[in-house]
Parts: sequence; structure tokens; C-alpha cells
Amino acid sequence: MTEDAGLLSPVRAGTPIETVVSDAAWLQAMLDAEAALVRAQANLSLAPREAAEVITAAARAERLDLRALSLQARESANPVVGLVREFTRVVAAIDPAAAEYVHRGSTSQDIFDTAAMLIARRALRLVRSDLAVLTETLSGLAERHRDTALAGRTLALHAVPTTFGLKAAGWRQLLLDADSRVATVLGSLPISLGGAAGTLAGYLEYGAEPDSLLEAFAVETGLSVPVLPWHTLRTPIADLAGVLAQCAGALGKFAVDVQSLTRTEVGEVTEPHVPGRGASSAMPQKRNPVLATLIRSASLQVPALAAVLTQCMLTEDERSAGAWHAEWTPLRECLRLTGGAAHTAVELARGLVVRPERMRANLALTGANIVTERLVATFAQVWGKTTAKDLVTGAMEAAERNGTALATELATLPEITGRFGEVDLTRLCDPATYTGAAAWLVTRATRQAHPRPS
Amino acid sequence: MTEDAGLLSPVRAGTPIETVVSDAAWLQAMLDAEAALVRAQANLSLAPREAAEVITAAARAERLDLRALSLQARESANPVVGLVREFTRVVAAIDPAAAEYVHRGSTSQDIFDTAAMLIARRALRLVRSDLAVLTETLSGLAERHRDTALAGRTLALHAVPTTFGLKAAGWRQLLLDADSRVATVLGSLPISLGGAAGTLAGYLEYGAEPDSLLEAFAVETGLSVPVLPWHTLRTPIADLAGVLAQCAGALGKFAVDVQSLTRTEVGEVTEPHVPGRGASSAMPQKRNPVLATLIRSASLQVPALAAVLTQCMLTEDERSAGAWHAEWTPLRECLRLTGGAAHTAVELARGLVVRPERMRANLALTGANIVTERLVATFAQVWGKTTAKDLVTGAMEAAERNGTALATELATLPEITGRFGEVDLTRLCDPATYTGAAAWLVTRATRQAHPRPS
Amino acid sequence: MTEDAGLLSPVRAGTPIETVVSDAAWLQAMLDAEAALVRAQANLSLAPREAAEVITAAARAERLDLRALSLQARESANPVVGLVREFTRVVAAIDPAAAEYVHRGSTSQDIFDTAAMLIARRALRLVRSDLAVLTETLSGLAERHRDTALAGRTLALHAVPTTFGLKAAGWRQLLLDADSRVATVLGSLPISLGGAAGTLAGYLEYGAEPDSLLEAFAVETGLSVPVLPWHTLRTPIADLAGVLAQCAGALGKFAVDVQSLTRTEVGEVTEPHVPGRGASSAMPQKRNPVLATLIRSASLQVPALAAVLTQCMLTEDERSAGAWHAEWTPLRECLRLTGGAAHTAVELARGLVVRPERMRANLALTGANIVTERLVATFAQVWGKTTAKDLVTGAMEAAERNGTALATELATLPEITGRFGEVDLTRLCDPATYTGAAAWLVTRATRQAHPRPS
Amino acid sequence: MTEDAGLLSPVRAGTPIETVVSDAAWLQAMLDAEAALVRAQANLSLAPREAAEVITAAARAERLDLRALSLQARESANPVVGLVREFTRVVAAIDPAAAEYVHRGSTSQDIFDTAAMLIARRALRLVRSDLAVLTETLSGLAERHRDTALAGRTLALHAVPTTFGLKAAGWRQLLLDADSRVATVLGSLPISLGGAAGTLAGYLEYGAEPDSLLEAFAVETGLSVPVLPWHTLRTPIADLAGVLAQCAGALGKFAVDVQSLTRTEVGEVTEPHVPGRGASSAMPQKRNPVLATLIRSASLQVPALAAVLTQCMLTEDERSAGAWHAEWTPLRECLRLTGGAAHTAVELARGLVVRPERMRANLALTGANIVTERLVATFAQVWGKTTAKDLVTGAMEAAERNGTALATELATLPEITGRFGEVDLTRLCDPATYTGAAAWLVTRATRQAHPRPS
Repeated sequence: MTEDAGLLSPVRAGTPIETVVSDAAWLQAMLDAEAALVRAQANLSLAPREAAEVITAAARAERLDLRALSLQARESANPVVGLVREFTRVVAAIDPAAAEYVHRGSTSQDIFDTAAMLIARRALRLVRSDLAVLTETLSGLAERHRDTALAGRTLALHAVPTTFGLKAAGWRQLLLDADSRVATVLGSLPISLGGAAGTLAGYLEYGAEPDSLLEAFAVETGLSVPVLPWHTLRTPIADLAGVLAQCAGALGKFAVDVQSLTRTEVGEVTEPHVPGRGASSAMPQKRNPVLATLIRSASLQVPALAAVLTQCMLTEDERSAGAWHAEWTPLRECLRLTGGAAHTAVELARGLVVRPERMRANLALTGANIVTERLVATFAQVWGKTTAKDLVTGAMEAAERNGTALATELATLPEITGRFGEVDLTRLCDPATYTGAAAWLVTRATRQAHPRPS
Repeated sequence: MTEDAGLLSPVRAGTPIETVVSDAAWLQAMLDAEAALVRAQANLSLAPREAAEVITAAARAERLDLRALSLQARESANPVVGLVREFTRVVAAIDPAAAEYVHRGSTSQDIFDTAAMLIARRALRLVRSDLAVLTETLSGLAERHRDTALAGRTLALHAVPTTFGLKAAGWRQLLLDADSRVATVLGSLPISLGGAAGTLAGYLEYGAEPDSLLEAFAVETGLSVPVLPWHTLRTPIADLAGVLAQCAGALGKFAVDVQSLTRTEVGEVTEPHVPGRGASSAMPQKRNPVLATLIRSASLQVPALAAVLTQCMLTEDERSAGAWHAEWTPLRECLRLTGGAAHTAVELARGLVVRPERMRANLALTGANIVTERLVATFAQVWGKTTAKDLVTGAMEAAERNGTALATELATLPEITGRFGEVDLTRLCDPATYTGAAAWLVTRATRQAHPRPS
Repeated sequence: MTEDAGLLSPVRAGTPIETVVSDAAWLQAMLDAEAALVRAQANLSLAPREAAEVITAAARAERLDLRALSLQARESANPVVGLVREFTRVVAAIDPAAAEYVHRGSTSQDIFDTAAMLIARRALRLVRSDLAVLTETLSGLAERHRDTALAGRTLALHAVPTTFGLKAAGWRQLLLDADSRVATVLGSLPISLGGAAGTLAGYLEYGAEPDSLLEAFAVETGLSVPVLPWHTLRTPIADLAGVLAQCAGALGKFAVDVQSLTRTEVGEVTEPHVPGRGASSAMPQKRNPVLATLIRSASLQVPALAAVLTQCMLTEDERSAGAWHAEWTPLRECLRLTGGAAHTAVELARGLVVRPERMRANLALTGANIVTERLVATFAQVWGKTTAKDLVTGAMEAAERNGTALATELATLPEITGRFGEVDLTRLCDPATYTGAAAWLVTRATRQAHPRPS
Repeated sequence: MTEDAGLLSPVRAGTPIETVVSDAAWLQAMLDAEAALVRAQANLSLAPREAAEVITAAARAERLDLRALSLQARESANPVVGLVREFTRVVAAIDPAAAEYVHRGSTSQDIFDTAAMLIARRALRLVRSDLAVLTETLSGLAERHRDTALAGRTLALHAVPTTFGLKAAGWRQLLLDADSRVATVLGSLPISLGGAAGTLAGYLEYGAEPDSLLEAFAVETGLSVPVLPWHTLRTPIADLAGVLAQCAGALGKFAVDVQSLTRTEVGEVTEPHVPGRGASSAMPQKRNPVLATLIRSASLQVPALAAVLTQCMLTEDERSAGAWHAEWTPLRECLRLTGGAAHTAVELARGLVVRPERMRANLALTGANIVTERLVATFAQVWGKTTAKDLVTGAMEAAERNGTALATELATLPEITGRFGEVDLTRLCDPATYTGAAAWLVTRATRQAHPRPS
């Protein structure tokens, strides 16, 4: 047995998602699926109620040897065969008659996939609950800094001004988008019930009616009824892959922006200051943006893992010899990384230190260069686009040549001073007044309701 | 200039998707976006109606030099800067006054991303229209073969019987699932309108009100209004990535199953016979399953390409220096491969030759071994699971030892003949009667409405 | 803390690779790196020999709390900062003077990356040792079945005959190729020694000469000296990604071929029979090809994980805020999956049951159709290619129409019987005699020396 | 037919790689393979020399209809079947007797894969020739700026100083590493010669000896002889995938560093200034780092495409129904993107503007904070690590509290002034003197020989 301490994955080490998707949790979820199955059968009088009760009570992961089951899984390429054998033994020790009803009519994949959906449900709920706090926190940031101007940056360079509120509203919106897609998938996670080759034959042999059994199993697990058994119709997995990659990407966008604004030369935000946090092993002056780093490390992994999942839709026959088995670890890892990143992002957003004074200082770095778009637009309405561009470009070049400010050079041009007074020019050259509809966009976006995860 | 003849991508060579996503189509879509923008501005009295008309009339890809624009794109890392310059020239030659209104207040990414959404819309509509025919065809197959028994196969081996109708219904359901997700994305493709750094400042400078401009541009393009400019909030791209990977996967599942059933030793289906189709360069006897091969070749590529798209959600700042640019080819390729595969799948489904006699023959290959699940279930209800398994396993081993049939060996066991008459045993050992709820599932699934692509 | 029992990854559960790449092993490797560093410094008289001895003796993973370190890793985004603090405490408790020499002049990434290389070395050696047994076993199979004819299959259909020996020689060759690339990488795994920003400044401050320190650290770890510190020059990681993906792919090819040959209708090989192995939870008759399934499940994951590693070559600055951290889990997982798959493949190859009689039977399935290539070639040398093809195609069509054998129809054609006697025709139509250079190729390939992992 | 103008892929539009890997080039390469095959056969007296000459002369892509062949490729899932038919027609029109010798004994995959290797050879040579110029240029930069100090940055923050020369030497080294791996693969690109199922049977039927035919074909193509036919043993493709991903990653590292140093607030390098280059469609002040952007856009795509190639090693049987076909476009795209990026990188390196004055200014931004590592190391040798860290941390906190410089605060501490004079302290606090072994490393690295592409 080896310990999964999270040493190589600090983004999730110790966060709530870890226990939700652990091997032990998965084992418990498989036992939950077995117990739900027999309860469903009992509800339809296909099994004695007492058997269902005994089995449900016995279905505790701690009664089984997780490591032994994992090793036995090599013999059947999945852990359910061994689990059924050992669990039957556990039940038989309590009530031999009940043991007859363990896994009745069932197949490994029904149990494993139903368990996977139970795990996914718990994990996605955690993710959504973190996203709810996160987007609400970002909403506050967006409103508070609705008008805090800073340099908009494109292709690494100052472009035109924007506001920090709009950046925060953007992070929030991207996360709301992801969350709404997670919510859709969360609402449709299905039971897996097909029997050996997806015809339900095994269940029927013990007297079940297909529709009532499907319904009863869905009720017992709280999952939904799929149109068809999905052993090799992997819509639920592809759905999860899609939304987890999107969610991880949304978190990653927040992280890379924080990193960009954190750079020493930029210094417009810093991560929450916690004693000891962000320390380097060598440099005492450092306070590394570790939360953003952890989030980004997750976001760099999830898309490829999600691609394994969609690739595995190419499952041959009624059960694939490998494509199904290849899903398990990547699915868990997508859930775990996204969950860890979401949890980390809450902490980052809550404590993010915003420095409007640095934003102002940086905004002033290139003088009026950052508002040449406005200058050209203003002048174009007088002299046409071409002339406008030529005027501004000429003044910029002169400024570069002379080591002066663009505003200064513009003020020397008679065409311009003939039309625009000093006050006009000062206003035109002031970056802080060129934030367009940023404030309006923030208000519009933050009016959108927050998600209410169930 | 180089010709893209599709030589290396026969799955899409000559299919309708090709022209829809070609370089020329993309150029036209960018011009469409430019024209829609000025019409939107004209509708709000921000530009003369005549200018809008001239620009709209001039916005024809054939007036521009596609290759020259592509080469110029290296100078600005995107094709829009050059396009605006050349297109302005084209318009100016017709009406110099109108030229003032080309790309007014705009930015490269607004035009490019809006064009991408226009392309995606056309492409997804094509995909949906092929999926509609495909799922309807599969519906017919499913109903026709609702009761056609064949071996259900798991981990490469015969498991229990199923029906070909259930297989076909499964392919259809997986495709319907994918189609419904495509439909959702298709219904929400947004305009891109943000201006240089996503604040709409450039547009406002020319007098626009943000909400009315957004609305007007959406009306002119037929796209929807996003909550926020999405230059670096890549929800629309991630949505496309998700559904295209899922769609390609669903098509791929159909293809790998066809291949599995086509194998010489299996021979349960063959691809539509078209003279010359499936020929080998060396072996005249061959009639290769080329359609399934083409589809699978696409499905093996799309997930990784889609992962590039979700990876590129990590776009820094207000416009990324590279992550945006990395999306273009993979997005086109995802659309093109999925579209080609969908088109190919229609042909495959329509002409698929189904051979019930081979299914029957294969089903009989292992005698009653394919229904041991039923035998165990039946006996378990008399003697309990353990004894039942022992009885069946013992008989199987005897059959293997003696080179006899399982049914024969069972008939020698007094326990069994004491409880089950010859007729019972014959029925229990007949694979054709052990298809469980297959027929019921087919009926239930095919009752689901077909998609109606708009 | 959560247990990593391998429940979701049976391909490696309990195989030797597991402990070699576990969290505990990684922690030990980091301590090994710390100890090697101070020994190197002591060798250069930069630290007292006693300190080096104390530190080396104390550097035992069991003295530290793995889970606590993993949780602390969240505070600095890597586990080394906490490790240095805790390990210093451990050393100080033994010898306060020695504690001064822990991690002297060093930085987290030097320790972590050196540890990663130590882990990779142990893991690759394990992989190579399994590959050595595997390729030798396949060599035996290849030689034994050098002339065992079976149907060569292309695009799912019988093409022309080949021999099982050539298949086995092919698996072996692909694995030898992969192994030779692994060997190259194994021979070049470097120390990581750069200090805080890759200038070695910290080490120099304590008196080190760069070349002697690099050399001494390399000697103590058994790793090689890189040309430059590689904190953000990720050649060693890219090299590992490349060879591990290739190795996993080579193993996967073996697995998918075994699966193809195992199919019920084909039955040309079966996996080694071990009591209980390959059991289904529902169907006693099944003996699933579980080893091939496990191997394939690994091979479906490794390429995407390896792509994360090469993607992370895009590390900004002197240390990335995320791209480095994203490597750790995928690297471990690539090693673990490949190692587990290699170990599993040994078992598969060793016990593979080959059934020449089934091969013969399948080869006869399509009569002379499988040798039409030869018929055309033979006739072409008499009548030219076009006529030859027409003759054969005509006869094939007649055979299909009449339900006869191709050989029979050929024997009715006067052109042919005029030139080819009955004996000739019988020989020409016999698949077993049309295996080309298969035997020669097997001999040639198996003459290649086996790898000798050090 | 659609034009591939490179509109969506400016990184390669118009660069030399484009024509080398175009559809037309691929068609020509297939014809080259056909011609080489018959010449090889003629050399062994298996075909008349005249036939070989006629066929070689006729083997011109312009004689065939590229688009028609691409469309026909749908009928056989590969373009070779149609090519052989049409090319035979072309040859027959010249010399009917020669037409008999077209594609004699051959199979589609032999021609296609040999063509792919010919294409890869030309493409890799181009890549290597660009890498040679690039690494030499970077060598110059490294030597010129061996001692140009700038801030070393880790996790987005200033860490300790480094030199620009070391950065440039690092880029060069990473590229040299990649190049050496490219060179290895380039030196081993093999012919593909196996016949219908890899046994060479077809060739032998026409009288060939396997070893002499393999040898002769290798001589005619200039490729090497593989140990075994590799239709489904995809070592050559996996090798290409590995080195191309590594090469693209190395180029991408250079690009992201340039972007990081280009940021407005940093301004330590700028891209070569070319009139019109880097222009924005809206903002005249902008001079976007477009070359770095293009390179990064390629590097973000190649790893995933390469993963498709290694994933496709899982090819079943003697020829895969899809996994082979899925390789073609990703392989071409890996070559094209890497080639385009390498070409672009040459331009970037050659014209890169380095600004030592901005490096100096940025280095001074945090005062002595950037050398706390040295301060701690120096003080540690007097008072031990703990005290040293406390002293420096205390002074840093005081500086932060008082808005003073760290050096100033240190000078107020009697412990320190008691041991270190003003001159010492000034030196210790000077970033420019704390570049460790940077210069030594540059010298050592640049002594490494440049690659000499053949």
C-alpha cells in the first residue's frame, strides 16, 4: 500500500475534494451502489426487505480491505469482481440468506459507473459550492473597482485603459459560464444499469420489469434514468470531461491574470498575505503568488486528461477491453484538480490585495500613448481616418525623437490647437477618462444572479 | 500559395463542410462581420446608410487577395489588420466617403471572432443536418432489427446475447445526445464586440451607446449578445471544443463497432457496396470498410485538437500573445473533421448491409456458454448462487474436457434433470431467447423525437 | 491523508513501479538529493565531513511527516520549502552545527528536480528490466512460430497470409526500439543545480567553484552534469515524455493485437490461464483478456499525459509560476503507467497460449481469396496486370454468385488451365505457402541483440 | 478545391516549410517513391531499365489531378489506390509496356509511408537549417551580453540577478538539445517496404530477394533500411512526434521569455522594428511582439498533435482501420508549425533589440531586496542561518514600515556595522555584482559546437 499524501499535487492536498474522490470514497460509492440496487429490488418485491437492510447496513468500506481489493482488481481488470466476492462474504457472515441478494442480476460496470456518478455528484457539488463563493467574492471586487482604471494589455503591451472592475467581472462571468454548464451536467448524472451486455437480461431473470427497476434504482441513488444503458455510450463521461476542462480553464484564466498583475514591475495586485505563505527556500524577500501558481498548475493538466476521456468514447462492442478502464484515473484527476483549484481560487479571490495606486502609476507610464485610439477617433471625425492617423503617428514619432510626451507634441500642431483647446487636449490625453463602457459592463454583468448550488 | 486538396484528410475531402470552413469562407465571414458592423452603426445613425450599403456590397472575398492577406497576417499576427487596410482601399475606390466607416471603432479580434462564430454556425448546421439524417436512418435500422439476436461482446469475448436493434439504437442515442449539445451551443453563438481592450471605448468614441450597438450588431449577424466581451473569456470556444469532441466521439463509436462487426471472422455487417469502393491497391478480393475507417480517423484526432482549445482558455490580460492565435487552426480542424465524419457516417448508415444469418451463426459458436448467466440465475433461485455457479462451472469444464456441448453435460446431471425438463433446458440454453429487455429498450429509445435542425 | 491503493489503476496496483514512484519514494529522493549536496560540498571542503555524515544518516523519509509536508507544500507551491525546514529541525536535534549545512546555497527546484531524476532513473531501470524479459520472451515466440501461418489482416479484413512469428517479432522490435530510446535517456539524466535563478550564486557565496561543485554533486548522485542549469530548459522532462509515450505505445500495440486475436470468433491466442483470472462478476464462461486490457488502459492515457509535459516546456522566466508544478503528477503517472504496463506485458507474453489450429482454420475461411495478390502477380507475368486482375476478379465474382470456391472457378477458365496445371493451381491457391519473406524477416530481426539493462 | 492560403496559420504562411509539406509536395513524394521502387527493381533486373526510366520521367505531380486524387481517396481511405490507377494511365500513354511495372508487388502503405519519410526529411532539414542560424545568432547574443545583469524572475517576481547572456545561452542550449534529437531522427528515417501485410510477399512473387530489394530501395530513396516493415510498428512516427514536440517547446520557451521581457512595464527587449510590423488595427502606438506571438501559437498546438501520433501507435493487426489514417494531418501539421516557428524565431533572434538600461533600471526597482539571498549567506557564515535570516527579515520589515531601503536599515544595525564596513555593505547590496557563475556558464555553454545540418 502506498500513501497518497498529495506531495506532488499541492493544489488539492488537504482540500475537501481529496476525500470525496479518494480510493476509499470510491469503494464506499460502489458499496452504496450495491446497497441501492438491492433496496430497489426489495421495493419491487424482488428481494426480501430484511436482505436489503442487512446489505445496506453491511455496506461500509471499512469492512473491506481496500488494498487487497485493488490488487485483486488486476485479476479481472476491475475492482468490482473482487468487491462482490468479499462483500458477499461479509454479508454472509451476518446473514447467509441475505448474501444471495448481493449484486443480483448485476454486472461490474453497472456498479462501477453508478459509483462514478455518485462520486462525480459529490465532487461537482463541492466545486459548485466553491464557485458560488468565488463568484460572489469577485462580484464584490468588480463593484468596488468598477471605476478603478488600469492599463488594458494586449499582446503583452499597454493597449487602452480598462478598469479593474471589468477584469474582475470578466473572471466572474467566465466562472459563471462554467458553473452553469457544471450545473446542467450535475442535474443529469445517470444511474448505470444494463447487466452483462446492456440488455438488463440478468435483472429480468430474477423477475424485474425493466422500467420499474430503472426507476427504483434511480430513486435509491438519487440519480436520473438514462434513455439506454450507457456501458459503451459514454455521454455522461464526455459531459463531465467537457465541463471540467471548461471549469479548470476558467479558473486558470483568473490565475494567469493574477500572475500577470503580480509581476514585480507591475505590482497591481498581490496575493493575500499569510505569515509563511509564499516563502522561498532561499530568498527571504519573496512572497510568491503561490495560490495562482497552484491553480495554474491544475489548469495546465485538466484539458489533456479530459481529452483522454473523450478519446475513450471510441469503445468497441458492448464493453471495451481498455477504453473503459482508461477513464477511471483521468476522471478522478479531473475532478480532483478542478476541485482543488476552485477551493484555492476562493482563498485567492477573498484575500486579493488590489493596489489602485500602482494601476494609476502604470497607466501613466506611456503618457498619452495609451489613448491614441481615442485621439485618432476624435481627429478622424474632423479630418478623416487617414489624416487623423498621420497626425497622431507623426506626433508620437516626434515625441520619441525628442524624448517628450505625446501630449506636448500634439500641442505644438496648429491643426490641432486650432480645433482643440488645452482643456480638450488634456481630457483627451487623460487615460483615466478613457475606460469606455467598462463601468456599464460591470453593472450589467454583476446584475446577473449568482448560482445557487443545491 | 498552396492547394488544400484534402489529400491527407479524405474524411472531409469534397464533403460540404470543406467549403464552409475554407480560408475563403473565413475571409468572407470577416467581411460579413465588417459589413454587419457598419450596418449596425447605420441603424443607430452612427454612419450614413449609403456607406453601409456600399460597404456591404463591396464585402466580397473575391475582391481581395486571400494569399496576400495571409502573408501580411505575419506582420500583425492576425489577418484582420491587413484585411482592414485592403478592404478600405476597395471601398475607397468605390466611394471614398464610405471608406471612413470601415472597421469604425473596431479591433481585429471583434471581427475575427465574430467571423469564427459565423463559420461555426454554418458548420454546426451542416453537422446537425447530417446527424438528423443519420439518427433517422439508425432509427430505422434499430426498429427493423429490434429482435435480431447477435452475440453481445465484452472485453473482446462473447458475453450474453443482445440484438442488433439495440446496438443501432445505442449509436443513435449517443448521436442524439451529442446533437442536443451541439444544438445548445448553436443557439448561443455570440457576437464579439469589445473594441481594443474589451471596454467598447472605440465604438463609444464614435457616439455609440453600448447596449444598442451590441443589440444592433447581434441583429445584423443573427448571433446572440454575450454578457461581456469575450476576447479573453473563451466560453464560446470551450463550448465548441466540448461538443465537437463529443460529436466526433459519438461518430467514432459507431465506426469502431462497424469495424468490429465487419472483421472477416465475424462478418455480421458490411459497408455499402459501391463499385470501386474499398478497393486495395494489391488485393482484388478486398472490400475495405473505408467509411468506418475515415470516420475513425477523424475521431482519433478531434479530442486532442479540442484540448488545445480548452488549454487556450489560459489567455493572459485583455488579449493573449499567442493563446488566441493558437485556437484558429484547431477550431477549423475540429469543425472540418467532425463535419466530414458526420457526412461520411450518413453514407455508412444508409447503406450498411446487415447479415442476420451470420449473427445467428456466431451466436451459436459457443453453444450454451453464452447464456451461462441465465443458467446460473435460474439455478440460483433453486439452489442458491454458490451451488448454481458450481453446477454450471462443473458442466462447462466437463464439456471442455469431453469436447461436448454444455447443454449435453447439463442434461447428465440428476439435480438438474430432476427439476428442469428437456424443454426447459432447451429453452434455457437457447441464446436467441435471452435478449432481456433489448426489444423494450429499442422501442423506448426510438420513441424519442428526432432532432429538427433549424 | 488518503490511501492510494491503486483501486482505479489496476495496471500498476502492486507492481514494483508503485513503490518506486510513491510519495514516500519522492520524499526519500529529495532527502537523498539534500544529502548528496552536502556530501559534495564536504568533498570540496565547503562543509565539515561530520556534518555531511550526520545529514546523510538523518536523511530518512520516515523521520518526516509526509502528509504534513504535503499540506505545507500549499504554502510555498512546492514541498521543498517545508521539507528543508523540517529536515533542518531533525538534523539540529542530532547536531545543531550540522544543521547549518542543510540545503546550503540551494533552492527548491534543485532538490526537487534532482529527486525527480533519481526517481526516473529507478523507474526506467525497472521498465528496462521488464522490457528485457519481455523482448526475450517474444523472441522465443517469434522463433517458435516463425512459420506458423495465419491471416494477415488489414482494415479489419483478411489481406494476405503472414506468420505468427512475424507478428511476435514485430512486437519485439517495436519494444526494442522503445527500449533503446529509454536507454539513451536513462544514460543522460542530469543533476539539477542552479540555485535561486540558475546562476549558482547561492552556492558560490559559500565558496564553491561552479565546475567542481557540479562534478561533485553528479558523482554523489550518479547523475550527469548538464551543460546549463535547466530550471526552465526542460530537455530532461521532454526526453522522458517522449520515450515514455513511445514505450507505452509499443506496449499498447502488443495489447491491441492480442485482443484482436483473442476475439471469440478468431480465437488464435488466449491469455495465460490462471485460476480466477479473467472472471466476470456475472458470466462463469468468461475468461477475459485482462492483461491486455490493463496494458491498453495505460497506453490510452500516457500520450496525453506526456503532452502535458512537453506543453510545459513553455516555462516563462527563470522559474515558471505553474508550468513546473504541472509536470509533477503527469511525470509520475507516465512512469507508473508505463512501468505497470511493462510488468503486465511480461506476464502476458510469458503465458500467451498460441493456437496454430485456429490460425489454420481462419486462414482457410475465405478459400483462395486471401491469396488473390499472388494469383494476380502470377497471371500478370503471363498476361499483364489488367488481364490478370480481370481474370481473378471475374472468377471471384463467379464464385460469389455460384457459392463455389475461387479455386474451383479458376479451374474452369481455359486460359488458366492452359498455362497452369492442377498442381500449380493448388499450390497457388494454398495460403500456407504464401507467407513471403516472413520467416526470413523473423530470423533477421531476432538476430538483433537483446538489450542489457544496466 | 479549396485554397490553403495560410490565413489561419500566419506562423507558417509563406515560410519555406509550407511548400515542402503541401499536398502537392506529398503527391510528388509518393510519385518519387513509386519511381524509386521501380528503379530499385530495375537495378536488380526485376524490371527493364527503360521502364524505370519512363516511370521516373513520368513521375511528376503536375501530370496528375491533385484534387481528383484527393476525392478518390475517399473510396479507398487513402490516396495511393487512385494515384496508382491514374499514374499507370499516364505511364501507359507514354509506354504501355512500362505501365506493367508501376507499383509492382507493392501496397498503398509502402508508398505513402515512404513518401511521408521523404517529406519529413526535407522538412527536418529545413528546421535544422533554421535552428543552425538561430543558435548561432543566440550564441552571439549570449556572448555579447554575458555580463549584462538583469533581474532573474521566479514565480513572476524578482528573485536574484542573472545576466541576459545566460538567458540567451539557455535558449540556445534548449534549441541545441532539440536539434540534436532532430538530427538523430533525421539520420534514421526509414523506407517503408512490406507489401500487403508486411511479409514482402508481393515483391517476392515478382522475383525479388528481400534483402537486396530493401537495400536497393533504400539506396534509391536515400532512406535507411528498417529491421522490419513498420506498417503497424510506428517507431518512425513516434520518433518524429517526440522530437517535433520538443523542438516546438524549445522555440516556445524562447517566445514566452521574449514576451515576458517585452511587457510595457518591463521593456527589456523589443522585437525587431520593421515598418508596419506589429501594427494594431486600432492603436497606432502599438508595436506588438508578433514574432513571439506567432511562435507561441505554434508551440501551443504541437504537443497535442504529437500526442495524436503517439496515441496512434495502438494500431491493430497488419494495418489499422483508422489509426494509420489519423496520423497524416497531425504529422504534416507538426512539421509545418515547427518549421514555421523555427523560421520565425530566426527573424526574432536576429533583430531582437536588447535594452541594458531598462534591465539596470528594473534591477534597481526593489533595492537590495533582490540580493537578500547573498545577505543571508554572508551573515550566516558569521552568525548562523537562523540569526542571519532574522536580521535580514527584520531589516526588510523595517524598510517596508519606514519606506526606506533595505541597505539603509541594515546600516542601522550595530551587529552588522560591527562586522561589515560601508564598502562591504554597498558591495553586498549591489545587484550587479551578484550574478554568480552566469558569465562562466555562458562561456562554458557557448563553447559547445554548433550543429552542422547536412
